[in-house]
Amino acid sequence: MPAVVTLTTDFGVGSPYVAAMKGVLLAAHPALSIVDITHAIEPQNVRQAAQVLADVSRFFPAHTIHLAVVDPGVGTARGLIYARFGVQQFLAPDNGLLSRLAAEAPPSTIIRLTEPQYWAERVAPTFHGRDILAPVAGRLSLGLDPELLGPRQLSLQMLDWPEAQRMAGKIEGEIVAVDSFGNLISNITEAQLRGVPTGEELQVLCDEHETRGLFRTYGDQPPQTFLALVGSNGCLELAIVNESAALMLGLGVGAKVTLKW
Amino acid sequence: MPAVVTLTTDFGVGSPYVAAMKGVLLAAHPALSIVDITHAIEPQNVRQAAQVLADVSRFFPAHTIHLAVVDPGVGTARGLIYARFGVQQFLAPDNGLLSRLAAEAPPSTIIRLTEPQYWAERVAPTFHGRDILAPVAGRLSLGLDPELLGPRQLSLQMLDWPEAQRMAGKIEGEIVAVDSFGNLISNITEAQLRGVPTGEELQVLCDEHETRGLFRTYGDQPPQTFLALVGSNGCLELAIVNESAALMLGLGVGAKVTLKW
Amino acid sequence: MPAVVTLTTDFGVGSPYVAAMKGVLLAAHPALSIVDITHAIEPQNVRQAAQVLADVSRFFPAHTIHLAVVDPGVGTARGLIYARFGVQQFLAPDNGLLSRLAAEAPPSTIIRLTEPQYWAERVAPTFHGRDILAPVAGRLSLGLDPELLGPRQLSLQMLDWPEAQRMAGKIEGEIVAVDSFGNLISNITEAQLRGVPTGEELQVLCDEHETRGLFRTYGDQPPQTFLALVGSNGCLELAIVNESAALMLGLGVGAKVTLKW
Repeated sequence: MPAVVTLTTDFGVGSPYVAAMKGVLLAAHPALSIVDITHAIEPQNVRQAAQVLADVSRFFPAHTIHLAVVDPGVGTARGLIYARFGVQQFLAPDNGLLSRLAAEAPPSTIIRLTEPQYWAERVAPTFHGRDILAPVAGRLSLGLDPELLGPRQLSLQMLDWPEAQRMAGKIEGEIVAVDSFGNLISNITEAQLRGVPTGEELQVLCDEHETRGLFRTYGDQPPQTFLALVGSNGCLELAIVNESAALMLGLGVGAKVTLKW
Repeated sequence: MPAVVTLTTDFGVGSPYVAAMKGVLLAAHPALSIVDITHAIEPQNVRQAAQVLADVSRFFPAHTIHLAVVDPGVGTARGLIYARFGVQQFLAPDNGLLSRLAAEAPPSTIIRLTEPQYWAERVAPTFHGRDILAPVAGRLSLGLDPELLGPRQLSLQMLDWPEAQRMAGKIEGEIVAVDSFGNLISNITEAQLRGVPTGEELQVLCDEHETRGLFRTYGDQPPQTFLALVGSNGCLELAIVNESAALMLGLGVGAKVTLKW
Repeated sequence: MPAVVTLTTDFGVGSPYVAAMKGVLLAAHPALSIVDITHAIEPQNVRQAAQVLADVSRFFPAHTIHLAVVDPGVGTARGLIYARFGVQQFLAPDNGLLSRLAAEAPPSTIIRLTEPQYWAERVAPTFHGRDILAPVAGRLSLGLDPELLGPRQLSLQMLDWPEAQRMAGKIEGEIVAVDSFGNLISNITEAQLRGVPTGEELQVLCDEHETRGLFRTYGDQPPQTFLALVGSNGCLELAIVNESAALMLGLGVGAKVTLKW
């Protein structure tokens, strides 16, 4: 089975830094299949990348190596780690990048990368993605035992992940992501929505904007309608049919969402 | 021969939705070669994507599977289809996405996707690209007979494609695409240009802007010159040497083009 | 060993022109591994692409074929060339695109592409990347001897590459690139910095902005600090911790950099 390495960075689309990493990966393992998850993470937005990794990594084949670099602390004392979550493997700085995944289920293995024999001969203090993580990913993809990379570590750096709260007749959550269509994706999960009425009796509030009921898909309402639905990642999503809810309502990450019934 | 799947969407460059689809494709068929045609289609601009598919798909190896998702009606009654045009295969919503191809030559096969055993176990009503088209593409790339995907369908949803008209001493057409350099690409074909004079006696009008004659390439005139030539897709193109004609002239898709001689 | 072809163009991210080239490459050699270096070169900015090629190509596996198209003179008398630098191969217009590489070390081979039997049957005068370079890259990746492509050529078109100057107690250079984080990358090399003091006694001036000393990495100073360091390409770099120096200082390519001690 061909090995797959994915890349998630804040280097920007079309960045030559990404190309350098791909060169290093292919030099180590020319048959590697490299997939860009995204390079459009906002500069230094560890939280955004952590959400993307949690949403997307699970769709990849077992044993995929997900290499993530959003690393404002590059070259400082922050660690670099290998971690395994289920059948997926990750290489990243230990700065919270894997903490959205860890909030769902803890990793089965965490190893701190301390063995320089698996890194580039010369490591630039400003580009560990190219000089440490990419060479390590190349070697792992060829079968290197992760245990050789360094000592076990017991826990990960965690960011605080706000969880939505369900109360009697009410759920309170917030917007945690905005997609490229301007749809507003909340942290209210399908599990939390179980038993909630989906008709007119359900009031959905986001900031001062209100809609009623839950719909199946965008096209269930006429263009320009503000509506709520369960999005493709299994969380409550607010959208304006055929338009950008983010732009039209001026809302984004952090906006409060309340459901009442 | 390794199987190739291309992707054309309006998800935006760097969208995690694209990454999710790639994960699904590789989980189905890890040796797959996945090529992005573009993810920069304007949101919901079916017409733009239809033009890109018609322009670009023919360059790919025989039996390439072109998966296209510009799908404002996702989850509604609009169908999803498999279609074969010559040696190229397509998977897309039946909303006009393949109608520019069909305007050139009808497909040899159209099949409506109705057999859920080839889809993801659970289908999100808002993301058929990930949960229906990608699993089907993965299986087709492994050799699944398209006839198993559902019943034959006789025709495709068609958009109206304006054709340029040649008259005595005159051709009337319009701009149908603008490329990343700001070159204005018309629907006037090389066939329609046959026998048209290419010198000073040919007047080329686009909106109120005028140039004379047809040139071979951009560099045949000095920088900043407005000129007409036959572009790389075989249609009449209007350009400003070393500049963006779209920006400098304020013109775009839909602008009328007239040739007189 | 699987063959690798990289692409560097000014076609824009998501351009269908890039997809057409990939189609041609895969049609010639379906097992090819194609890597995008970047398509975000500013339109017609040969100098920017030349810098990227010099910075990034050396990370790729031996025998990689780097196909570069920034080609304002497409279809005119400018030549198209094959060149070999060390273990890396290049296909490009002979317009200075390879001159940053050549400024470091001359190519071992230059061949002018004159043999149309290795090109597309029909060559559009406005798209030699698709109709000449991509078919040639496909054939080279399958083992075609580059000597068959045309006659040897003795030298390349060169752009003028400003070199930094070291004097007594002083180095004068300039900014030659800005990365996606807004870091300002100069042409002052590590070799030129040898023996230069790295503490407070070193004054670093860029335009009217001043900092002192050299740091190892961004995180060595607090957020918002303007600092100098040796960047990941081995040249002096100016940065503002966690911010874009380019935006905050209004500086870019061409800004003068002076070190005094």
